[in-house]
Amino acid sequence: MTFPRHPFDSAWNGDKLREECGIFGAIGVPDAATFVALGLHALQHRGQEAGGIVSFAPGVGFNSVRRFGYVRDNFTSSDVMQQLPGQIACGHVRYSTSGSKGAAIRDVQPLFAEFAMGGCAIAHNGNLTNAEQLRAELIDRGSIFQSSSDTECIIHLMARSIQRSIPERMKDALRRVEGAFSVIAMTRTKLIGVRDPRGVRPLMLGRLGEGWVMASETCALDIIGAEFVREIAPGEMVIATPDGIESSFPFDAKPKKFCIFEHVYFSRPDSVIGGQSVYETRRKIGVELAKEAPVEADLVCPVPDSGTPAAIGYSQESGIPYAMGIIRNQYMGRTFIEPTAEIRNMGVRLKLNVNRALIRGKRVVLVDDSVVRGTTSRKIKEMILDAGAAEVHFRIASPPTQWPCFYGVDTPEREKLLAAQMSVEEMREHLDVDSLAFVSLDGLYRAAGEKGRAAEPQFCDACFSGDYPVEPTDQIAAGRVRLKADA
Amino acid sequence: MTFPRHPFDSAWNGDKLREECGIFGAIGVPDAATFVALGLHALQHRGQEAGGIVSFAPGVGFNSVRRFGYVRDNFTSSDVMQQLPGQIACGHVRYSTSGSKGAAIRDVQPLFAEFAMGGCAIAHNGNLTNAEQLRAELIDRGSIFQSSSDTECIIHLMARSIQRSIPERMKDALRRVEGAFSVIAMTRTKLIGVRDPRGVRPLMLGRLGEGWVMASETCALDIIGAEFVREIAPGEMVIATPDGIESSFPFDAKPKKFCIFEHVYFSRPDSVIGGQSVYETRRKIGVELAKEAPVEADLVCPVPDSGTPAAIGYSQESGIPYAMGIIRNQYMGRTFIEPTAEIRNMGVRLKLNVNRALIRGKRVVLVDDSVVRGTTSRKIKEMILDAGAAEVHFRIASPPTQWPCFYGVDTPEREKLLAAQMSVEEMREHLDVDSLAFVSLDGLYRAAGEKGRAAEPQFCDACFSGDYPVEPTDQIAAGRVRLKADA
Amino acid sequence: MTFPRHPFDSAWNGDKLREECGIFGAIGVPDAATFVALGLHALQHRGQEAGGIVSFAPGVGFNSVRRFGYVRDNFTSSDVMQQLPGQIACGHVRYSTSGSKGAAIRDVQPLFAEFAMGGCAIAHNGNLTNAEQLRAELIDRGSIFQSSSDTECIIHLMARSIQRSIPERMKDALRRVEGAFSVIAMTRTKLIGVRDPRGVRPLMLGRLGEGWVMASETCALDIIGAEFVREIAPGEMVIATPDGIESSFPFDAKPKKFCIFEHVYFSRPDSVIGGQSVYETRRKIGVELAKEAPVEADLVCPVPDSGTPAAIGYSQESGIPYAMGIIRNQYMGRTFIEPTAEIRNMGVRLKLNVNRALIRGKRVVLVDDSVVRGTTSRKIKEMILDAGAAEVHFRIASPPTQWPCFYGVDTPEREKLLAAQMSVEEMREHLDVDSLAFVSLDGLYRAAGEKGRAAEPQFCDACFSGDYPVEPTDQIAAGRVRLKADA
Amino acid sequence: MTFPRHPFDSAWNGDKLREECGIFGAIGVPDAATFVALGLHALQHRGQEAGGIVSFAPGVGFNSVRRFGYVRDNFTSSDVMQQLPGQIACGHVRYSTSGSKGAAIRDVQPLFAEFAMGGCAIAHNGNLTNAEQLRAELIDRGSIFQSSSDTECIIHLMARSIQRSIPERMKDALRRVEGAFSVIAMTRTKLIGVRDPRGVRPLMLGRLGEGWVMASETCALDIIGAEFVREIAPGEMVIATPDGIESSFPFDAKPKKFCIFEHVYFSRPDSVIGGQSVYETRRKIGVELAKEAPVEADLVCPVPDSGTPAAIGYSQESGIPYAMGIIRNQYMGRTFIEPTAEIRNMGVRLKLNVNRALIRGKRVVLVDDSVVRGTTSRKIKEMILDAGAAEVHFRIASPPTQWPCFYGVDTPEREKLLAAQMSVEEMREHLDVDSLAFVSLDGLYRAAGEKGRAAEPQFCDACFSGDYPVEPTDQIAAGRVRLKADA
Repeated sequence: MTFPRHPFDSAWNGDKLREECGIFGAIGVPDAATFVALGLHALQHRGQEAGGIVSFAPGVGFNSVRRFGYVRDNFTSSDVMQQLPGQIACGHVRYSTSGSKGAAIRDVQPLFAEFAMGGCAIAHNGNLTNAEQLRAELIDRGSIFQSSSDTECIIHLMARSIQRSIPERMKDALRRVEGAFSVIAMTRTKLIGVRDPRGVRPLMLGRLGEGWVMASETCALDIIGAEFVREIAPGEMVIATPDGIESSFPFDAKPKKFCIFEHVYFSRPDSVIGGQSVYETRRKIGVELAKEAPVEADLVCPVPDSGTPAAIGYSQESGIPYAMGIIRNQYMGRTFIEPTAEIRNMGVRLKLNVNRALIRGKRVVLVDDSVVRGTTSRKIKEMILDAGAAEVHFRIASPPTQWPCFYGVDTPEREKLLAAQMSVEEMREHLDVDSLAFVSLDGLYRAAGEKGRAAEPQFCDACFSGDYPVEPTDQIAAGRVRLKADA
Repeated sequence: MTFPRHPFDSAWNGDKLREECGIFGAIGVPDAATFVALGLHALQHRGQEAGGIVSFAPGVGFNSVRRFGYVRDNFTSSDVMQQLPGQIACGHVRYSTSGSKGAAIRDVQPLFAEFAMGGCAIAHNGNLTNAEQLRAELIDRGSIFQSSSDTECIIHLMARSIQRSIPERMKDALRRVEGAFSVIAMTRTKLIGVRDPRGVRPLMLGRLGEGWVMASETCALDIIGAEFVREIAPGEMVIATPDGIESSFPFDAKPKKFCIFEHVYFSRPDSVIGGQSVYETRRKIGVELAKEAPVEADLVCPVPDSGTPAAIGYSQESGIPYAMGIIRNQYMGRTFIEPTAEIRNMGVRLKLNVNRALIRGKRVVLVDDSVVRGTTSRKIKEMILDAGAAEVHFRIASPPTQWPCFYGVDTPEREKLLAAQMSVEEMREHLDVDSLAFVSLDGLYRAAGEKGRAAEPQFCDACFSGDYPVEPTDQIAAGRVRLKADA
Repeated sequence: MTFPRHPFDSAWNGDKLREECGIFGAIGVPDAATFVALGLHALQHRGQEAGGIVSFAPGVGFNSVRRFGYVRDNFTSSDVMQQLPGQIACGHVRYSTSGSKGAAIRDVQPLFAEFAMGGCAIAHNGNLTNAEQLRAELIDRGSIFQSSSDTECIIHLMARSIQRSIPERMKDALRRVEGAFSVIAMTRTKLIGVRDPRGVRPLMLGRLGEGWVMASETCALDIIGAEFVREIAPGEMVIATPDGIESSFPFDAKPKKFCIFEHVYFSRPDSVIGGQSVYETRRKIGVELAKEAPVEADLVCPVPDSGTPAAIGYSQESGIPYAMGIIRNQYMGRTFIEPTAEIRNMGVRLKLNVNRALIRGKRVVLVDDSVVRGTTSRKIKEMILDAGAAEVHFRIASPPTQWPCFYGVDTPEREKLLAAQMSVEEMREHLDVDSLAFVSLDGLYRAAGEKGRAAEPQFCDACFSGDYPVEPTDQIAAGRVRLKADA
Repeated sequence: MTFPRHPFDSAWNGDKLREECGIFGAIGVPDAATFVALGLHALQHRGQEAGGIVSFAPGVGFNSVRRFGYVRDNFTSSDVMQQLPGQIACGHVRYSTSGSKGAAIRDVQPLFAEFAMGGCAIAHNGNLTNAEQLRAELIDRGSIFQSSSDTECIIHLMARSIQRSIPERMKDALRRVEGAFSVIAMTRTKLIGVRDPRGVRPLMLGRLGEGWVMASETCALDIIGAEFVREIAPGEMVIATPDGIESSFPFDAKPKKFCIFEHVYFSRPDSVIGGQSVYETRRKIGVELAKEAPVEADLVCPVPDSGTPAAIGYSQESGIPYAMGIIRNQYMGRTFIEPTAEIRNMGVRLKLNVNRALIRGKRVVLVDDSVVRGTTSRKIKEMILDAGAAEVHFRIASPPTQWPCFYGVDTPEREKLLAAQMSVEEMREHLDVDSLAFVSLDGLYRAAGEKGRAAEPQFCDACFSGDYPVEPTDQIAAGRVRLKADA
């Protein structure tokens, strides 16, 4: 049973990069799965297609519920939650990066396996760049794959490890994989969190009463009233039991490469990363933009909702009044399936409407977080002009997106990225706006708390720069990628 | 089959007044029902519980689909829309005001009846204040009621009218009813729009290609690209056919009493009423508030989303920076049903989260549109204080809500309205905030484009003033109401 | 939402006449609706398309659940049954005779109406022959019809009656209707059963503990362990309360005309009618057939399941061994929807399979209950010959079906009845069998306990004889019928 | 998502032994999956809980649909069948024998695995007696089990085999397993059928146009119009391709031990086994019973439907008239879930009703196929006596069932088998009937075409005799079984 992608994806949300996963785990709290459900609800923006929870209770064993759809629709009835008893649980929401095109429930995480020394569930945020290579090797040795998920490689590597405990087998396995991974795993008695040595994806540690929780973002700690303890460090494995936590660093050290797009778009504005409010970072991007690309205008309007913080910053720095020139229909959802051709042509109007009385005759600065294919940007510009705006100036709160991501983000091929095909001036002409400007890479680094981009960059910014910190082994082997050096 | 009310209603959305209905009709356009579906989608905020569409096509007859749930979930598949062919259609979304507690599909409008001279469908926004009296009289004469809706009285009055055409029977019937009504009705060949003589509820006329559309708000014209023609006037009946429109005024004239709460909260900010942007009216309420109730503070934060325009106005007038101190979870939906006690206690956190890093140590002005029971206001205040705010100042973009509405809005009984029980200072103590202020009634009238409230007020403001423009006959007969004179 | 007719209907069950309704009521027993559900389950063969139950409990009022599908699927969960509390309830299963083609839930009975003196629910088995005439008259006077059911006429006639009690209004109303009706109705305190003066459709009275039950057939009394008291007589109205029963005869007396097809096919073989086992009547038809139409053969095989009792009788009278030459697939159900063309061509094989090893080389007597269109008979004959039978002799346990029924049975138009178009010998050629014989009308009357068909026939046998005991007023008015006199 | 067992199982069908699986495969025919669906529909009696189909088409690859519920509900829509394209397919219906109690979709067969040389799907009827031993060994070596099915052992053994082709790996694997198995497997180009060396479970080969089909029973060939070619022999592997079939015998030869209960109850009466009609075998059991245990009586009645053929035989041999004294409700289905306590107490009456008018005052011989726990037998006896029967004589068409089956049949533990706890006379007293007799083991063998039971028995009759042809390794290791030698 496949889960149809939203038909408006191409018109609207489809024109965004997508984080593929959010993960959450809890140990040492009653009805742990309930907290996991709440945590995943807070992380839904990281993966809207499907979700799963595994729990363990003595005498009952491991239980698992995996479903397509939203957490709020699948993990809220007492019927379902009673199937997930116990004081330890972990869960996953996903969009899907690697994995088959036709979504299958067997690809929904957490994955679970029974080893000789007991069961283990694994939830993975990120992407392994050598998964195809590993898979071929494992099948050759007699492993049977049940999913098309890269995460299953970790499971089979663990099954074949000669180490004696599950944490040791996990270290053993993760030393063979390449790429980006933040993993939450659980055994009957342990909750395990681990990040790849570059720390590409986030992972947070929190305290809830006598227990421990782990989550992709701090907003998922807030929703359950957990206290934020600290970020799990790049390359660190944290093992939590009701008795306390143990930390180790099983991998060779690497330069830190946290994904800068988490700051730009993926993470929720009420999350905190590296001690700084994501909202504040985004507001500061707007400030940088106003400095780098000022313009005379009457109103600064965000493209809702992701452009809002940067628009506020732009307004504050420039002194041009902030206004809600575009209103989002809050009842727009995942569904609207099988619409008639009539409805399909309505395009972006189903989701956004221009505040016509406000816009008429005004010079408008429109602030958006990024331009991917550029399809939505064109439509929004048309709506604004139809409503009688005098001028439209686009300001983008990230540098031009020119390269695909191989570390756990769903990006179009390079050929479909507008900025890979055109200069900024060509894009301005293509979008047919009065002016267009992107924040600079240095400006973005400044907003994120750095002095600028260093020689060894402080973040992974491959989507903007083409500088890939980990070689995309499978992509190269398959001839599916052209790197910057070849460009 | 009843439709459970959202369990968080009491914690969150429940603490708002609710508009009960949105209506839409189209004639002279191909696949009229598709446009009705889109229009109702744009009006979903006026009624989220259920929706219905009736269409007529020669040879096929009248067809009707009525469903609980959102328009986007029920009226988007080609399967459903193919059941609604024809060039004339009308529809309704509802929350439910009068009508039985356990919602029944037979209460979902439009209601349809077959008269001797043909079929007629009726969609009604408003509330009849003498419906119970009429109902008893009609049953006594042999009418069989199928719903608990007040609207069915109109149908039975029409069935018994001695007039010869459906429009004449409708006039005949509407002269017997009291209260607030904006009605869209359709026969096989006519689309009829009519407003009560005081014009309590809105009704707009638009042009779409060769055809005509009618809608509760202009935002529903925008979504289908229809041109806004004009408002249907208080007491006016407009009959649209493919050949043109006819206007008549069948009722005795009354002073205009448009509902001022449409400006405050009910209507969408991108709609235009009386020639003025609703967004702009709300922003101006914020400006008035800042003038009437200034305060020294570091940030102005809206309670999302309804407080946003007034917060922007307050910030602009006061010079205090605007910030998104509270973030709404956009995946919060109608569902989350049957949650465990655990989840229920999470209360408002499932829907809102404080931007902790932003708020810590700050003096915060929180702007909300209204205070009804005050339950949500308390919880939001606690969240803000938990996050470390130094001071919390509430500013409310409407006067104290002290009286129930009998004209089509779902209000709690007077005993549950916080402002009916306490003075402003008592409320401040109850909410335990550093200061609390409501915009004045005159300030509200100024923001709405008047010089102030006149001796014969230009709006219906009974919820604030207790001055009811139409006597609530049934309520008085049942002893369910205490009027201002008795208070 | 329409309920698709089974695609194999035309190939298999479709080639039967269909009883349209079963009714059941209970008063004076705890959880009356549960007994109604069980009774309707036992009557499911009388109407498989939809079912409904209404109950009343003091303080709670009337409640109603009406659904498409089987009783076992809709009225067995505690969720549903808890919506139907109280010590009085009645229910209905239907196939649909009159009523719109696209089935609508509003046509599912019992129908309910609120009169000035209280609520009343009505469940009707039969068909009113002047419903269209009455409907036009009632609409003209201001009644609004909600369904396309003929039963709604009874409700509106009652609403307009000048009598003061519900039973008196019901008598008043039923004196205006013509045709066949067995009705179970309920008020807050009374269960009412009434049969038309000819007693075309059955209605039974039973005792359950301190309470009373009414049902279409005795098998529905057996399932709940109720004691069979007596049949309600033609023209009788029985009013049951916890205090006892009252009987009256409100109509002018008419000759009794019980439907003889109830004996042939409609009623369940374990029911008792007129003091005689239906199974036994059918077995005796087989005995009559063996006397009237003997043949030399090796095996007597029933067409399962309806031909079984007559086949047993034929075998016993003729001495030819009885055998299950055709096996029915018991997993064949209502569904198998949207099959591929491939499956559709499988036709009757999906439901029946020949016992090939048994049939090969044998002379087979096939016994079926009736021949309607003849489509199934042809296919069964082909299956038997394919399996290698030496000879096939069809024996039919009813006379040739030549006329449509207007009293509550779903019959094809006369043009589609095989026996209306062909002589018996022509049918034998058309079916291409070695011999074909129908039981005689007199033989059928003998099996049913009479000496033969009298001058004033003891049953309604219009489907065989064309002698309609009640004039089909609406059909004649609409020119939709050609009577025997015209033939 | 678990699939609740029918609540009446214990009252009615639960008191039967259950075959656990039916299998079907097709190659070389267009839309092979459609034929598999039809074949599985004909085999539904062998497994009603769940079903699955795998197909392969070049360019599309392997596709799989596995569902809980009936074939007719899951594999008939064009939506589903379009997911299963190709000219090769196989499928499975199951009840569940080994495998976890809470049914999981991952246990539904066919199982599928991707090996280094390509994909393979496996459908298995039977039970492996050393599966637990094998499972522990395989997990120890690094295999990850996804299901609790014994069949998955075959898959993992194949994955680790050092042979180079899938058929060779299958032989390799099947030489390691013990117990009963009839397997249908498919690769991209081959359909493979194989039976264990004793041939405990059936497997048939048929021809359909240019293609080949394999099925558990011949009735599944009839439904699609396939020609019966021959039984696949015990110990034989048949590989079918569009070019023809290849046969081999990869196992050491063993004495044949076909399950005699297939004749008694499991197989459909219209199937042919060993050249003899199953219906005819059952009728002959009735003849043997009448010879071995005659009685003076008025009627011979079957317990429907499984007792019918033996009752016909008993009637024919004894000369006592055959009659349908018990009527089965054909609308009784899988559902009736969550009934109230009220309904639960109705017990067997929901499914069966006595033909009271027929039974009253009569001496009745009741013929049933077997007695397992005896719970149903008692209830049926009570119904018959309540209806006024003068005497009740039970005749059982199999010997006393005294031992559990370990070869693919769902049997209660020995402690719950009535005949393991009581002598025939004690059972007669327990059931409180006038007489009770079982057919003798020799009589059963005679009806099945043998002269009697030989020293080396011609069938597996362990459930009657306790003579297990294959040692139940896992059961013994777990101490879960007491064999005859220990008894």
